Amino acid sequence: MSSPVEKLIRNFCKLPGIGEKSAARLVFFLLRSQKQIAKELSEALKELHEKMRLCSLCCNVTDADPCSFCQDSKRDPSLLCVVEDPSDLKAIEKTYSYKGLYHVLHGALSPLEGIGPDDLKIAELLTRLKKSPVHEIILATNANVEGDATSLYLTRLLKPMEIKITRLASGIPVGGELEFIDPSTLSKALAERREIY
Amino acid sequence: MSSPVEKLIRNFCKLPGIGEKSAARLVFFLLRSQKQIAKELSEALKELHEKMRLCSLCCNVTDADPCSFCQDSKRDPSLLCVVEDPSDLKAIEKTYSYKGLYHVLHGALSPLEGIGPDDLKIAELLTRLKKSPVHEIILATNANVEGDATSLYLTRLLKPMEIKITRLASGIPVGGELEFIDPSTLSKALAERREIY
Repeated sequence: MSSPVEKLIRNFCKLPGIGEKSAARLVFFLLRSQKQIAKELSEALKELHEKMRLCSLCCNVTDADPCSFCQDSKRDPSLLCVVEDPSDLKAIEKTYSYKGLYHVLHGALSPLEGIGPDDLKIAELLTRLKKSPVHEIILATNANVEGDATSLYLTRLLKPMEIKITRLASGIPVGGELEFIDPSTLSKALAERREIY
Repeated sequence: MSSPVEKLIRNFCKLPGIGEKSAARLVFFLLRSQKQIAKELSEALKELHEKMRLCSLCCNVTDADPCSFCQDSKRDPSLLCVVEDPSDLKAIEKTYSYKGLYHVLHGALSPLEGIGPDDLKIAELLTRLKKSPVHEIILATNANVEGDATSLYLTRLLKPMEIKITRLASGIPVGGELEFIDPSTLSKALAERREIY
């Protein structure tokens, strides 16, 4: 097979979850379909790496600085939600139930992978809080070891500022059946049970 | 989320097997990783739609005309393997057990989808056979209804030329266990059983 095809297969293979077979399938799909599809995808990729940078306030990826969230006057500036990644921010936005601002850490503390506080956007968070104080910080890091560690670290760091610090609730997912919930989630759901009456 | 991200997600979604969630995962992977990866992928895509065209002899996709197969003097020009798509050609090449030439039809007959003989590279095949006759034509279309129909159509069309026409063997895949083989394959394997002693 000729070189542009092989080259594109190799490049698709670098993406997560795409092996050689899937990559070849994508390339042959592009060869079969209108040239427009490959062209637009190529241009969108080019735009991504040319235009995207980090918002100087919240560190979210954006093509405008400050980003659309930080610029939005309808959002509540006294509420700050700290997430690990831009994809987490997107997930929260999809709930349509949060109207405060965000701060993106770009990762979580992980001594095993050599990721310490200096590798995350924590200094940026502190600078920002000094300039414009908030009433509440929601720590929306992942519910795994790294996310919990990051959350704990931030809690200790932010305590002296006397801000209300909250963490996303942990428990049984909506629609979940006890029979199929893993023991750790179930024990967490038990420990954090709420009074309803 | 800002527009270049959304745009790239939309474009990834057009690829087969990539839904909105996978597309978002790919984009956020690209945002996290080195810019080089997105850049190279963009360039490879651009190259694909700029450089690739069909070989004037075998109709395979290529960046050189005639393609590397048709130019290769080590291949047997008296043997011609007819396949539906460039990906089928690639699959046969991976066996390292075929050293003849190819002809790519770019599809199979499918009245339901409105694909008739004129939509396939059949005229090109006939022109080619008139110019340079071959000893044997291997019909390597898929083993499904469309592939069988295409094969039958070509057999009738090529009969007057008095060329040996063969079809890929159909039967139990290597390593297959009878217990798990579907009835159609098993009945085909029975019908086409070979004498071994």
